[in-house]
Parts: sequence; structure tokens; C-alpha cells
Amino acid sequence: MTIAIVGGTGPEGSGLALRWAQAGETIIIGSRDAKRASETANKLCEKIGAKRATGTENKFACADAEIVVLTVPFEAQAEMLKHIKPSLRPGQILIDTTVPLAAGVGGKPTRTLGVWQGSAAQQAAELVPEGVAVVAAFHNLAADLLNQDRPVDCDVIVCSDDKQAGKRVRELARKIPGVRALDGGKLENARIVEQITAVLIGLNIRHKGHSGLRITGLPAESYEN
Amino acid sequence: MTIAIVGGTGPEGSGLALRWAQAGETIIIGSRDAKRASETANKLCEKIGAKRATGTENKFACADAEIVVLTVPFEAQAEMLKHIKPSLRPGQILIDTTVPLAAGVGGKPTRTLGVWQGSAAQQAAELVPEGVAVVAAFHNLAADLLNQDRPVDCDVIVCSDDKQAGKRVRELARKIPGVRALDGGKLENARIVEQITAVLIGLNIRHKGHSGLRITGLPAESYEN
Repeated sequence: MTIAIVGGTGPEGSGLALRWAQAGETIIIGSRDAKRASETANKLCEKIGAKRATGTENKFACADAEIVVLTVPFEAQAEMLKHIKPSLRPGQILIDTTVPLAAGVGGKPTRTLGVWQGSAAQQAAELVPEGVAVVAAFHNLAADLLNQDRPVDCDVIVCSDDKQAGKRVRELARKIPGVRALDGGKLENARIVEQITAVLIGLNIRHKGHSGLRITGLPAESYEN
Repeated sequence: MTIAIVGGTGPEGSGLALRWAQAGETIIIGSRDAKRASETANKLCEKIGAKRATGTENKFACADAEIVVLTVPFEAQAEMLKHIKPSLRPGQILIDTTVPLAAGVGGKPTRTLGVWQGSAAQQAAELVPEGVAVVAAFHNLAADLLNQDRPVDCDVIVCSDDKQAGKRVRELARKIPGVRALDGGKLENARIVEQITAVLIGLNIRHKGHSGLRITGLPAESYEN
């Protein structure tokens, strides 16, 4: 499976790339700047001691991938989706990790913006070609935790209107050591999952930590399907 | 400390009453129907084998309490606050547990309503007399878990503009076995904490469980202050 990370030189994108490359996946780091993308990919290969990542401009990265992961800030999301749209094709999965933080327009990172469609993920769904399955996930999994050298202590809530795509993304999430992935239902539910990130950021600021989320009280198979 | 539970005959209210009575607090069960309130209080006393609860009409319940806990459904919240307002006085703490679920107006329990003030808690803050500190908490702690005979596996995120009141409510939350309480910052943050409940309800429906929330990755003292 080849995974393109759009915005893959940023902290969240490179953190996901690191974890999936360590798990044996093939990664294409995407960036506005192909040279930076290559440099990030080379560093990643060096770090894990295996040639599992390459780097290129975002649009080219998407063309060669089965799964495209969008990890740019909210204020760049719509523009980036329009930019990569010609490279997207039916059958691909687009994982949207975007959180509409007010920080993106000069506000606080503990506040969020209202998105007309309900959530950043639903905005993404409007902007991809027909046949591309949009899955919202990884909002609550901090870059700092991904880039640490130990398992994370976090659950990932996955929302999608495409059940098969959601299942594939949950399987992908579970390749990150420590992650339990849960079916969060329809894509519209992403509006809440996205917002949880602002609460976690507030807790991090207040308590100087790297907070994550665990969901308790569900049968074991909930975390496995 | 005397705690009045407005809507105390409902599942969430009676669950909180049970846990706090077991911890040695004095409880006044409030209800629209004083007789039902008394019956619920008597059952509670029988269950715990101690005379720590009485029951009366909501307005009378509030008059005698230092802490008032509002556990009515969202669609009854504003009306109830107007009803009890004459009994509220400066120095009291009002704990708002309200979640604006769309189910309240015939929609789904996995969807929420937009509240003009931003959250049910902020709506409450508009409706109490000056000097009453509003604290938002316990949204994510399911009645089913409170009414079980074992510790809960849940964190409680507490939001308030009154730091002292927030601290008191965190201390009160910790009297429920298993609860870790966290400072969720200002009351405005309740808008997200309230919404998390809809995600948990969705998980419960999908996976037939009683889900709760744990926050990971924070220093131990975050859960103690």
C-alpha cells in the first residue's frame, strides 16, 4: 500500500509518515517544495534504516498513492484540495486530519471556527472528485506523540460515509503502536471529533503535557473491527 | 456540604446523588413532584443504609443547598432555570450537566443543537442571578455507569469562569470512585465537552457499550488540582 502525505514535511504529516514507514508501508512525502519533500523523506529513511519513503510535490505524490492523507493547516485545506484534485481518482481514500482551529485566522488554538459544511472533513468531501472516499481521522493524535520514540496512549475515532474505507483506515491507524481505532460513524460526526482537539490543546497549555484520548467502556471487539 | 439535584429523580441526577451520598455528602433530591422526590430520596437512603437524602420540589431544594446540580434535559433547561432563579443566591455554585442533544427536539441523540450562547452552560450562566458561579461538568459521565455498583472508568472535564468554584467541583467529582477530574478552562469550552457526549452516545449505539472518556498524557498533578 502506498500512502501519500500531503503536507508531509509538517509535524503531524511527518509523524504519521514515520510511524507507517516503521510499520512497513510505502510513503510518499508531499510538499509544496519538492526538494524539501525529498529531504524529509531521506531523513525518514535514514532514521528507520530502510528505503520506504520518497518525496515530491503534493500533486505528484497523490497521483501514485492508494491513500492520500491531508495534514495541512485548516486555512490551507480548501486551496490544497483544489490543487491536488486533478491527481485524485475514484477508488482512492482521502484521510482528512484537518482541525478548524481559530489559530488559523489569528485566534486561539483552544477555539474553533464554524465550517459551513459542518466540519473540515465535510468541506473536504465537497472538494474531491466523485468516487474518492473521504475519511476523517487522527485529529486527536498529537504530532508530539507521533514523533516520540514510544507507543502512543491514544484512541483514534474514524468517521466516514464509506464503511469499507473507514475500516481500511482503522486498520491503518492500528499500525501505529498504542493506537486503538474506533468506528465514529458517519463523516458528519467529524465535526465533534475535530473540535476535541481544541480541548486537548487547552489541557496541554494548562498542564504542560501532550494529552490524548482513550474511550473506555466498550466491548473489546469495538477496537478490532 | 449540601447538594441539591434539580431533576434528581432522572437517571443522571439520581446516579450522581447515589455516588455523593455514598461519599458522605448531604443530598436534596429536587423534582417537579415533591412526592416523587421524597420517594427517590427514601430509596436512596435505603440503598446506602444511611439517612443522607431528602426530597422536595426543585425550588425548595435549591434554597437549602450550597451546590445546585442541574440534570434536566436540554429542552427543559432554560425554563427550569427561570423557575429556580428566585431560590438561587450569590455564593452558590450551579453545576450544569446539560447536553444540547438534537433528541430533545425530535432529532437524533448522536447530533447536537446549536445554542446561541455557544453552549448549554453559557445559556445557564445568562439565566442565574449575579454571584452564582456556573460550572459545567459531568456531561460525559453516563447515568448507566453512575448507577452501576462499581467505580467508573471516566475523567470529568470541568469548565468555569470562576476558578475557585471549578476547583470545588473537581474535588466533588473525585468523590465518585474512579473519576479523575481535569480543569477544562473557561466556561466557553463547555461547548465542546457537551458535544463529546453525542460521540459517546453514537459509540454506545454502534458497539452496545457504556462508553466514557479518559485523557492521557498529562502530568499526575493535573488530575489532583
